[in-house]
Amino acid sequence: MVYWGAEEMFMAKTIETPSGPSRRFDVAGYEAIDPAALETFPYEYPGKEISVDIDTDEFTAVCPWSGLPDFGTVKIRYLPQKRILELKSLKYYLFSYRNVGIFQEHAVVRILDDLAKVADPQWMEITLDYKVRGGLHTVCRARHPHL
Amino acid sequence: MVYWGAEEMFMAKTIETPSGPSRRFDVAGYEAIDPAALETFPYEYPGKEISVDIDTDEFTAVCPWSGLPDFGTVKIRYLPQKRILELKSLKYYLFSYRNVGIFQEHAVVRILDDLAKVADPQWMEITLDYKVRGGLHTVCRARHPHL
Amino acid sequence: MVYWGAEEMFMAKTIETPSGPSRRFDVAGYEAIDPAALETFPYEYPGKEISVDIDTDEFTAVCPWSGLPDFGTVKIRYLPQKRILELKSLKYYLFSYRNVGIFQEHAVVRILDDLAKVADPQWMEITLDYKVRGGLHTVCRARHPHL
Amino acid sequence: MVYWGAEEMFMAKTIETPSGPSRRFDVAGYEAIDPAALETFPYEYPGKEISVDIDTDEFTAVCPWSGLPDFGTVKIRYLPQKRILELKSLKYYLFSYRNVGIFQEHAVVRILDDLAKVADPQWMEITLDYKVRGGLHTVCRARHPHL
Amino acid sequence: MVYWGAEEMFMAKTIETPSGPSRRFDVAGYEAIDPAALETFPYEYPGKEISVDIDTDEFTAVCPWSGLPDFGTVKIRYLPQKRILELKSLKYYLFSYRNVGIFQEHAVVRILDDLAKVADPQWMEITLDYKVRGGLHTVCRARHPHL
Amino acid sequence: MVYWGAEEMFMAKTIETPSGPSRRFDVAGYEAIDPAALETFPYEYPGKEISVDIDTDEFTAVCPWSGLPDFGTVKIRYLPQKRILELKSLKYYLFSYRNVGIFQEHAVVRILDDLAKVADPQWMEITLDYKVRGGLHTVCRARHPHL
Amino acid sequence: MVYWGAEEMFMAKTIETPSGPSRRFDVAGYEAIDPAALETFPYEYPGKEISVDIDTDEFTAVCPWSGLPDFGTVKIRYLPQKRILELKSLKYYLFSYRNVGIFQEHAVVRILDDLAKVADPQWMEITLDYKVRGGLHTVCRARHPHL
Amino acid sequence: MVYWGAEEMFMAKTIETPSGPSRRFDVAGYEAIDPAALETFPYEYPGKEISVDIDTDEFTAVCPWSGLPDFGTVKIRYLPQKRILELKSLKYYLFSYRNVGIFQEHAVVRILDDLAKVADPQWMEITLDYKVRGGLHTVCRARHPHL
Amino acid sequence: MVYWGAEEMFMAKTIETPSGPSRRFDVAGYEAIDPAALETFPYEYPGKEISVDIDTDEFTAVCPWSGLPDFGTVKIRYLPQKRILELKSLKYYLFSYRNVGIFQEHAVVRILDDLAKVADPQWMEITLDYKVRGGLHTVCRARHPHL
Amino acid sequence: MVYWGAEEMFMAKTIETPSGPSRRFDVAGYEAIDPAALETFPYEYPGKEISVDIDTDEFTAVCPWSGLPDFGTVKIRYLPQKRILELKSLKYYLFSYRNVGIFQEHAVVRILDDLAKVADPQWMEITLDYKVRGGLHTVCRARHPHL
Repeated sequence: MVYWGAEEMFMAKTIETPSGPSRRFDVAGYEAIDPAALETFPYEYPGKEISVDIDTDEFTAVCPWSGLPDFGTVKIRYLPQKRILELKSLKYYLFSYRNVGIFQEHAVVRILDDLAKVADPQWMEITLDYKVRGGLHTVCRARHPHL
Repeated sequence: MVYWGAEEMFMAKTIETPSGPSRRFDVAGYEAIDPAALETFPYEYPGKEISVDIDTDEFTAVCPWSGLPDFGTVKIRYLPQKRILELKSLKYYLFSYRNVGIFQEHAVVRILDDLAKVADPQWMEITLDYKVRGGLHTVCRARHPHL
Repeated sequence: MVYWGAEEMFMAKTIETPSGPSRRFDVAGYEAIDPAALETFPYEYPGKEISVDIDTDEFTAVCPWSGLPDFGTVKIRYLPQKRILELKSLKYYLFSYRNVGIFQEHAVVRILDDLAKVADPQWMEITLDYKVRGGLHTVCRARHPHL
Repeated sequence: MVYWGAEEMFMAKTIETPSGPSRRFDVAGYEAIDPAALETFPYEYPGKEISVDIDTDEFTAVCPWSGLPDFGTVKIRYLPQKRILELKSLKYYLFSYRNVGIFQEHAVVRILDDLAKVADPQWMEITLDYKVRGGLHTVCRARHPHL
Repeated sequence: MVYWGAEEMFMAKTIETPSGPSRRFDVAGYEAIDPAALETFPYEYPGKEISVDIDTDEFTAVCPWSGLPDFGTVKIRYLPQKRILELKSLKYYLFSYRNVGIFQEHAVVRILDDLAKVADPQWMEITLDYKVRGGLHTVCRARHPHL
Repeated sequence: MVYWGAEEMFMAKTIETPSGPSRRFDVAGYEAIDPAALETFPYEYPGKEISVDIDTDEFTAVCPWSGLPDFGTVKIRYLPQKRILELKSLKYYLFSYRNVGIFQEHAVVRILDDLAKVADPQWMEITLDYKVRGGLHTVCRARHPHL
Repeated sequence: MVYWGAEEMFMAKTIETPSGPSRRFDVAGYEAIDPAALETFPYEYPGKEISVDIDTDEFTAVCPWSGLPDFGTVKIRYLPQKRILELKSLKYYLFSYRNVGIFQEHAVVRILDDLAKVADPQWMEITLDYKVRGGLHTVCRARHPHL
Repeated sequence: MVYWGAEEMFMAKTIETPSGPSRRFDVAGYEAIDPAALETFPYEYPGKEISVDIDTDEFTAVCPWSGLPDFGTVKIRYLPQKRILELKSLKYYLFSYRNVGIFQEHAVVRILDDLAKVADPQWMEITLDYKVRGGLHTVCRARHPHL
Repeated sequence: MVYWGAEEMFMAKTIETPSGPSRRFDVAGYEAIDPAALETFPYEYPGKEISVDIDTDEFTAVCPWSGLPDFGTVKIRYLPQKRILELKSLKYYLFSYRNVGIFQEHAVVRILDDLAKVADPQWMEITLDYKVRGGLHTVCRARHPHL
Repeated sequence: MVYWGAEEMFMAKTIETPSGPSRRFDVAGYEAIDPAALETFPYEYPGKEISVDIDTDEFTAVCPWSGLPDFGTVKIRYLPQKRILELKSLKYYLFSYRNVGIFQEHAVVRILDDLAKVADPQWMEITLDYKVRGGLHTVCRARHPHL
């Protein structure tokens, strides 16, 4: 693309190349995601509706192309029925994404499906808010039951 | 680059253990919760609806497993009918959780039930917002009458 | 748990490549920087010291390697002697970096040298604060007279 | 007190004109906008609704009259159907406005139409928030499908 | 300056001109500034040093070229000796700049000189912080006694 | 303790009066408001709904009693039909209130009526948010078409 | 570890009592509330609906038990019909609570009833937000017409 | 454009006067200030230097001219020697200004002198930060020992 | 206007007393403070100076008079020599204040002395910032070695 | 009231244990840290001093005991001599800590030593700010040349 153009201006400026080629790091596949880590405990007041909001700014996965890490915040909001998500086990589950190559738009659905399966909530919403990449900030959100 | 996966890297690093075993502290049971501390006074304008919001960031209870303290904020929102919650007595009531071992998801319902019983409000909502544990921040909310 | 290091995990995951190769855009050289745009007007109270702080969050230049734009904030602080920097001309000057390929660490010195030359201040400091690239946020600062 | 209105007060004050005439810069036409840069990749969970929010504070175009740059934030919110917007290509697309002379009220519709065409979302909203000009701050918003 | 340039791109885009020529408004000269409005009252504790900080975000003067208004914040910090600045009279004094055409860099010195003359402080500093013009935000500061 | 009510306490304390009588400044009437300054330009995408939000914190009018200035923020939100408000002309229009004596509650309706007349929007809302007077902060809002 | 429960720990610690008994201050009764201070002026655009929001963080009344002062913010939102609340008179009215002993839950209704009576609005809402007492922060709200 | 200065514009606009004359309220004299309320208790670690910072945003006194209330924040910073200021008694002391007519610039010195006398600190500083009056925000500060 | 001072106004208003007498809770003595809980581990780079800042907003002790809880933030800043404070043990140590009746001004020195004894730092500073009591917010700070 | 200390209260409450034993994850040793990833490029203005500040909130390492991840912010401030740190290579270097078990107090020194070795700056400072663990927030800082 050459939408600006006076010739002398666009002769490639000679600069010392300080960096070698970009590195590519290996990534783990989806099978490293560990839903078996998730545990629940019984809700003492079944029939009395509560909402539970959990958020953590300590989520990291890797880019499926470069293997470089992405960082973000996970927000979980749900209405329990009979089971409560145990927090330490939730931490282990989220930790299992640490080396997984996955797109943000897919990770949000995968987390939702895994959590909804073990907690069987009346309603659940996952929000995945990633730090800036290339000047762009992206937030994805999914809900259970799926619309 | 293969800085993980390489065997020698994952041999357990030997480090001087600076801390003895984690301590466990005794906890009080639910019977230490003191709803008898709660008092009310008559609302001067019965029939004229008002809303009342109360919040305090000075709530503490203890973890039922470790006995270590949890800290958080309690928010109370209600529509009185004939009685107003007296604030000093509310403070005494909340103070009574100080050594009680209770999960956040259960405490929010217990507080709601105790306050609704003495104030008999038209509507009431309790929000319990705990400080971060293990990188996770959790907020629970319950409403009276229960859905 | 050994969810990394396991061989099958690190077989390159096959993913559909959604994007073609990264683009490279042409960049202008330093000669596009336009110090001739800068104007000053006489200070009415020579001998009475004032400080002048100017900042704008509307600076953009381009990366010398990719030609992709960088965005940032320029802060100028100076003590005038006999001349005041005229603001509209300053805007034209900063605008002339729009297609110039230049490192942030060098741009801060170039701006300082150009401004100090026309304004002849007693003292001047330039701060160049760029938006995040690759998760890294960088701020450069230079002073006249150079230490 | 009548410190204005008095005749001698309104005699034009003679001041040294520090600046020459305002400059006019050339601008590119709409044909420089590059929707062909946009790419998408398939959504892995078609039928499971998610929302995606993208924002960047690195948008710049130019004023169609003066050629001087405008700076602003673009916010994109959409519900994908079968395709996800690829972020690097989105960056290239937004970059193509860099020298285009276009009003903010028209740019917001143009971006919406280009993005909706390639992503075919269930719903999409674009917000274009420009920095202050002449003391006025302006935000435009458009939605797909158009009302 | 023609640092972009492919011909077809830079044919002046024909646009309907929505605005007539820019207007020029008359401005008042420095003689409209009214230091006679300033009053003081005696400090009850002469010999006991205090500092007094006054700020107002309700200052406006006009651009000496266009007559269009500038808006800003004035901050005054001083150490009184025997007289205290009376606030209502200070308000009248600052009000007298409302139609005066004056540069920010000069206004800051003029205010300092007028206030220091009536209050005779041990030390005084004036800061004049103007709202953004052309994307540039400017702050000027002067001190008494002048350095 | 009865430190008020005691007679000797309420004898008027004799204080040196540091200020002369409050000043009254002349004010301009409504005829100084200049709707003729307003201009529009055609919307390129008639039939595609957008919203436009404009705000400026550089509005000033004067108190109809004292002639002293009021300062505030004007927010304009509208859905254009065929015409877009031209911003420079809007600036001139708002500038014309500079010496007009008008109550905030009336100014908000006048601005709405003038803008709606020239822009003929589908919907418009004006918010006028004034700085604190006598410890009171006031915001007025009006909508077109009027309810 | 049993650092509570141990007998010797709970022997009342002997500390020097630095303060005498808590003081009780006299309070004024409701008859000091001065609705006669309230004035209105005619709305110039009857039939054109506006909303008016007023807030002040300079409200104080006293505790009916101790006579110690409470501090808070009053927010008033209303839709006028034919009369506008005059602000200086509103200030005098709110000032009349300065020594009145009244509960927050009752004050909010009293203020609403007094203001609604003189302004005869289409709709009005009062919010009374008090500073922290005993670690508890309380906000009361009432609406006219009463539900 | 000459929209001011034109004669017909400055004929006093006839407006309905909605308010009666401004009220004047009685004020208490300095003798209502109650330093006898202040108490201290012994510092347990004399010889080990600590700093103590106390602030409260619940201070109110009245304007000596109008009797209308002023509101502000008091900040106290001191280095104790042998005595610690008891907080409840400090509250009573500050409460005693509630109806006292006093200028801010004098109140700050009076508070300093009273507190320093009972606490005999190594060093003390008082800051008195008042809410906006007439668009002006004022902060006064004094130190012990006086310079 | 004399709405205070009038006799009938100050007759004690009879109000229903909603609360019984204030409660007094037992408190633990200083011997419950547990410096033995503190542990350290060796610093790997003795001779290379670092600073360490630790803060927690989860500190609570009780008022020595009423036994009611105080809440606050502890900030620790130190320059290690050969030992690093182990964080879990620090948590246990701070936890041991939970039922101790102690003034804030004394607690800050006690914490400093206990920590400095086990960590033997080159320099240490403790800040204890308590939540508002009676409208007053208090912060205490102490340094090792003591001045 | 003695709601703690009472024997029956401290009988261990029997609760269903929802979680199995805490997990321990393997950690990489210091040899995984990759200073060889670091690159520099020549500074164009040697002899003209600039400062460079870099910060990223995307740092993660693991706890040497549990293998659980720590998250934090790294801040780098340095004065270059002849070489500038290349940012992409810096990112790779910081990435190499991802699985390394290291204490925060040691990591800050290691990073400083590695960066100072390749960049040979006149002065450098590293700040490592970790997210809350166990309610404690910790920040470490080191400087080159070491004091």
